[in-house]
Amino acid sequence: MTTRWRRAAGISLVLASTAWQADALAQDGRAALERYVASHQRAIVLELVDLVSIPNTAADSDNIRRNAALLRDMLRRRSFTTEILETDSNPLVWGELRVPGATRTLLIWAHYDGQPVDPKAWRQANPFNPVLRAGRLEDGAKELSGLRSLDKFDPNWRLYARSASDDKAPIVALLAAVDALKASGMALSSNVRVVLDGEAGAGGLAAAFPKYRDKLTANVMLLLEGPAHPSGRPTIAFGVRGYLAMDVTVYGPKVAVNSGNYGNWVPNPALGLARLLASMKDDEGRVLVDGFYDGVGTLTAEEQAMLAAVPDEPASLMKLFGIAAPVRSDLSLQQALQLPALNIRALSSGVIGGDATLVIPDRATALLEVRLVKETPAKAMADKLMAHIGAQGYHIVHSEPDDDTRSRYPHIAKVVLRGTAGAGWRTPPLAPEAQMVTAAVTRMLGEPPVLIRTMGQRVNMAPFIEAMGAPAIVLPTVNFDNNQTAENENLRLGHLFTGILTLAAVLTM
Amino acid sequence: MTTRWRRAAGISLVLASTAWQADALAQDGRAALERYVASHQRAIVLELVDLVSIPNTAADSDNIRRNAALLRDMLRRRSFTTEILETDSNPLVWGELRVPGATRTLLIWAHYDGQPVDPKAWRQANPFNPVLRAGRLEDGAKELSGLRSLDKFDPNWRLYARSASDDKAPIVALLAAVDALKASGMALSSNVRVVLDGEAGAGGLAAAFPKYRDKLTANVMLLLEGPAHPSGRPTIAFGVRGYLAMDVTVYGPKVAVNSGNYGNWVPNPALGLARLLASMKDDEGRVLVDGFYDGVGTLTAEEQAMLAAVPDEPASLMKLFGIAAPVRSDLSLQQALQLPALNIRALSSGVIGGDATLVIPDRATALLEVRLVKETPAKAMADKLMAHIGAQGYHIVHSEPDDDTRSRYPHIAKVVLRGTAGAGWRTPPLAPEAQMVTAAVTRMLGEPPVLIRTMGQRVNMAPFIEAMGAPAIVLPTVNFDNNQTAENENLRLGHLFTGILTLAAVLTM
Repeated sequence: MTTRWRRAAGISLVLASTAWQADALAQDGRAALERYVASHQRAIVLELVDLVSIPNTAADSDNIRRNAALLRDMLRRRSFTTEILETDSNPLVWGELRVPGATRTLLIWAHYDGQPVDPKAWRQANPFNPVLRAGRLEDGAKELSGLRSLDKFDPNWRLYARSASDDKAPIVALLAAVDALKASGMALSSNVRVVLDGEAGAGGLAAAFPKYRDKLTANVMLLLEGPAHPSGRPTIAFGVRGYLAMDVTVYGPKVAVNSGNYGNWVPNPALGLARLLASMKDDEGRVLVDGFYDGVGTLTAEEQAMLAAVPDEPASLMKLFGIAAPVRSDLSLQQALQLPALNIRALSSGVIGGDATLVIPDRATALLEVRLVKETPAKAMADKLMAHIGAQGYHIVHSEPDDDTRSRYPHIAKVVLRGTAGAGWRTPPLAPEAQMVTAAVTRMLGEPPVLIRTMGQRVNMAPFIEAMGAPAIVLPTVNFDNNQTAENENLRLGHLFTGILTLAAVLTM
Repeated sequence: MTTRWRRAAGISLVLASTAWQADALAQDGRAALERYVASHQRAIVLELVDLVSIPNTAADSDNIRRNAALLRDMLRRRSFTTEILETDSNPLVWGELRVPGATRTLLIWAHYDGQPVDPKAWRQANPFNPVLRAGRLEDGAKELSGLRSLDKFDPNWRLYARSASDDKAPIVALLAAVDALKASGMALSSNVRVVLDGEAGAGGLAAAFPKYRDKLTANVMLLLEGPAHPSGRPTIAFGVRGYLAMDVTVYGPKVAVNSGNYGNWVPNPALGLARLLASMKDDEGRVLVDGFYDGVGTLTAEEQAMLAAVPDEPASLMKLFGIAAPVRSDLSLQQALQLPALNIRALSSGVIGGDATLVIPDRATALLEVRLVKETPAKAMADKLMAHIGAQGYHIVHSEPDDDTRSRYPHIAKVVLRGTAGAGWRTPPLAPEAQMVTAAVTRMLGEPPVLIRTMGQRVNMAPFIEAMGAPAIVLPTVNFDNNQTAENENLRLGHLFTGILTLAAVLTM
């Protein structure tokens, strides 16, 4: 293990020198591809514009079908054999391009559904009516008119729309890479299978695997997902965090009561919840839930070196986020990502704002989540959280407490697990397939990629990856500041264009 | 002081024996009034029904004017001299009934505006379309049809409407008392001034006092407000809690960020807020804010005896509220009311429910309130809370923090005081006017009233009472479980009918 990790830590240097030794063929190829992209910006961007113009909230079945139909057409135009594969969840769009003589098959995964939208929170009228801006909205960048009539697009311009980054841009980049390679006379080196998921993380794909096994097996799986490193360098990730969420509700009086009449006497559930949540972390931000970090172990010096090689710029990030210090002064960002994280995603009790009535609320709820790592399975972690809540004196229920329960327990917490838990996973960074991808991207892009041991972005694919059996590697190509889980999602166009080269690299490796 | 308090503790027994020595005149008077009420239930209830049918949210100026016009008519029908008195806030409805030979003037205050409504939360279609039920909604009581055609009303029936209890029922009870006394040939003993406030607690009345001094002075002020004791016994209160509120916002990243990518590194404001709030109380529910209880002092044995004489039934209350134990095991409810109380009225961060996005929220806000007592002025208390927040390591701001502030302080709390703070106040329970009211109610109702040293209900009248200069005494007549600050406000009709006798008592004392 130590040897493997020493090699992992060294890989970028070795490959970098290979690249800098001027692989003339690769440089020629890259130049041809860049010329193609430069002269086809309009077609590439407009294909994405058309794609993000179709709403893609997972629950919106009609529009999901419209997305699937367009995606199938897009694949067909590149001569893919295509099929819509039905699942228990939204349909998969499947395509295959067989390459004469190829002995290797890639399975390239992306998802075409998008995060839920709260249109009121967006700065544009409609998250599915894309807006081009001359930079970041947060920097005051103005909207650019005439999106459909432009021929050239500055790499710093941004397209604002739901799924612009997550995850439609990588799909468009993949197909543009196929086009660019063909136009440049460069052959694909592998058979390519594409599977576009209509409900990322919902498990429809994993459940459907036995049925579609012959269409979904491959030697390497590539996941097009998540943000590239903020440095702007190409990025490869070998694992991702998993995820679990639970709603925790603490109870006060059955009906909100006047705080003047009963303050100091009727328990306040918001304070109870605050105390419960406060019990979960120490002053230094370490989680106090018993066993929370079990299994993670200490990283070796070699592992630490791999993390240290990631060119994070904490000062820039802190400035961007408007924070004076990270939550844990003892961890770099990459170190922080190797550990499970406890996050409070939402709090709610009573009504803030306006002339809220003067009450002790009847309940207070927190939406708690844990970002898991490979070493911390979801079920065990949920049990540990519940054990912690119990250890704070709470009687745990899983539905509304009845009168008898209320009369017996002074502290009641309702814990409802959300159905979306997913395991973290990781492919060894020195697996041959991992090295092959790293080498191909290094060669094509002319610089060593940033190698990420554990990516923060949720890619809830552990069940499918396990069933499918091939090593899985993530190719994140979009800008890190894309707001993909919030309002005003956006794509920096330079990342779209560079992403095409990254994908061309793996198609020809 | 000790002597006065010993007398206070003894007063109910002395007066009770006076009453039981069969004040024949009072018993005859009471019987006549009871007959009047029994035979006029329909008119009394329908007058209230008409009054609560006019919406009375303080901000709804047009309807506030309609309320004022109806109230003025109602006073005129009882031969009051009336006037609408304009203030900086909503108008006052003023009326005066001069009594030949009277040497004392009562100023009777009530308010005709109601708490804000959230119609969706109500079980009836419209909070201003009253519904009669055969009991408590929470006990499954059904709606009774034909409200306007009924002649008899069971005392356990309830009228559901905004302001049914707070504060329109006492106004109707007062006027019914005037009618009943007249019909029974019983003379008023005092000149009566009535002032009906269009925005309780907003300070319009206090600010207008200098202008209307000649209409608003009196020897005794009676406030018709708040719930009678749950025991069902007549109730007199000599003081009330005050009130202050502040929004406290703790900051995370400038824009919500993905918790997978940044969990363990970007601070979570919801956890920060939870820790801050948790720091404010100890395990036994005592407030840890430095100086929070300053000035309150220890109650003497006599004072404790007065509190102990209140026939609270903690077991019944706990059952009603569905709580297993009070928040402070060392305090009775009456003891709890003598202390300032720290309450969290609302919490908000991110979005609970649905498919909330996967983020570290940008901020978390608590609506904190303190229920003050006479000994704890609002300004000093707000300063103490802010000092506590500062002592937890927070840099306090009063508007959104700018980039420079964010970069300098790892913990930032925005504190915004709400404009509605009000002082607690108290009239000495052994003041002659207090004794006179207590004796009159005891005589009329035939049982000693419950004497409340400090009532929880907010009656934000300290500035007016101070300016006006006469002792102020609260006569709470409505049922305690009236939901007056929440949805489904209701009035138990038996309390309306008994309230008429209570008011007749003070009109003839």
